[in-house]
Amino acid sequence: MGCFITFEGIEGCGKTTQINLLAERLQALGHDVIVTREPGGCPIADQIRSVLLNGANSAMAPLAELLLYAAARAQHVAEIVSPALATGKIVLCDRFTDATLAYQGFARDLDKKLIQSLNQLASGNIRPDMTILFDCPVEVGLSRAVSPLDSHGIREDRFEKESLAFHQRVRNGYINIAEQEPDRITKVSADREVAAVAKDVLNAVLSRIAKG
Amino acid sequence: MGCFITFEGIEGCGKTTQINLLAERLQALGHDVIVTREPGGCPIADQIRSVLLNGANSAMAPLAELLLYAAARAQHVAEIVSPALATGKIVLCDRFTDATLAYQGFARDLDKKLIQSLNQLASGNIRPDMTILFDCPVEVGLSRAVSPLDSHGIREDRFEKESLAFHQRVRNGYINIAEQEPDRITKVSADREVAAVAKDVLNAVLSRIAKG
Repeated sequence: MGCFITFEGIEGCGKTTQINLLAERLQALGHDVIVTREPGGCPIADQIRSVLLNGANSAMAPLAELLLYAAARAQHVAEIVSPALATGKIVLCDRFTDATLAYQGFARDLDKKLIQSLNQLASGNIRPDMTILFDCPVEVGLSRAVSPLDSHGIREDRFEKESLAFHQRVRNGYINIAEQEPDRITKVSADREVAAVAKDVLNAVLSRIAKG
Repeated sequence: MGCFITFEGIEGCGKTTQINLLAERLQALGHDVIVTREPGGCPIADQIRSVLLNGANSAMAPLAELLLYAAARAQHVAEIVSPALATGKIVLCDRFTDATLAYQGFARDLDKKLIQSLNQLASGNIRPDMTILFDCPVEVGLSRAVSPLDSHGIREDRFEKESLAFHQRVRNGYINIAEQEPDRITKVSADREVAAVAKDVLNAVLSRIAKG
């Protein structure tokens, strides 16, 4: 079995940059790495992602949103994550089950037990071996993450259109989850220079891989 | 509260034609009727429908498929069915929860208890007051239901591409469900002239509406 590492944090926390840097370093050290993301990571899940993020879909019911995340996850785990782990790869995944709990549970206030049971259903027997939480103040993240306006002047990303208070609930949710699972989740302060964050991430991951 | 009537049956059983005829008759009698369908019935659920039916999505995992149906249903019930019933309308819906049990349960052999719990989650407290099952031999239905080929010569509808044995399992599933709930489900033989089927449907529905 390979190693499944997930990356979490609010919009604009710098996850994507850090995952790509980490993948380069790990590959340079000879590891077999794939980078993927949720929602998405394969053609069918990417189609679901488009429905989820489409800024025009403002009428989406919270339960429909939750079930779409579960559907995208079921496809991504079956088609990408599970086969890659079975062949011994290191899988770096931009968001996973913790994001659903932070966004739909803590921020949208959907039933957390329901979310956990759908998370478990969709991810089968796959659990992250390690999770890096990039933590930064909401104001810092949102100032970095601004999606373009579409031709109707509507912000393209449905989540970036949410209120500051929504993103604050997401951040607090993530911190709460990390406190409940300190062995799995490493919190990294993301309000720093890219290189400093990258060094901490690499050290944490190498030490986890060394443990096997 | 209005009256929620769902229509079920294999591909090509003639549901759509019959629903439209019934809606015309009911409207002529002064009833306030809306016609809708699953998956779909509103813009977000229609986007999910496109993912589900797209003939190019042959890699779809059965669990992802099941969760997409649940997501489309949650949106459709919240946005269309539930508000229409609350204002006293008769809602005629082309496919609903029985279709999920017949297709994903009986034909794909997914866990029926899981399907029933997702059906219940997605439809909230909404249950059909009456269901018409249009029953006909699989060969008859499939000879009527042929979606066009796309530009790559691929059959456009992912379900019409399934085997005869798959559709036979769907038909048997529907018959099984109808036998378990004879009070709710009226089975109508669909291998007859359109007018004869329409007359039976109208009589059954009027007698149900009269009961209140």
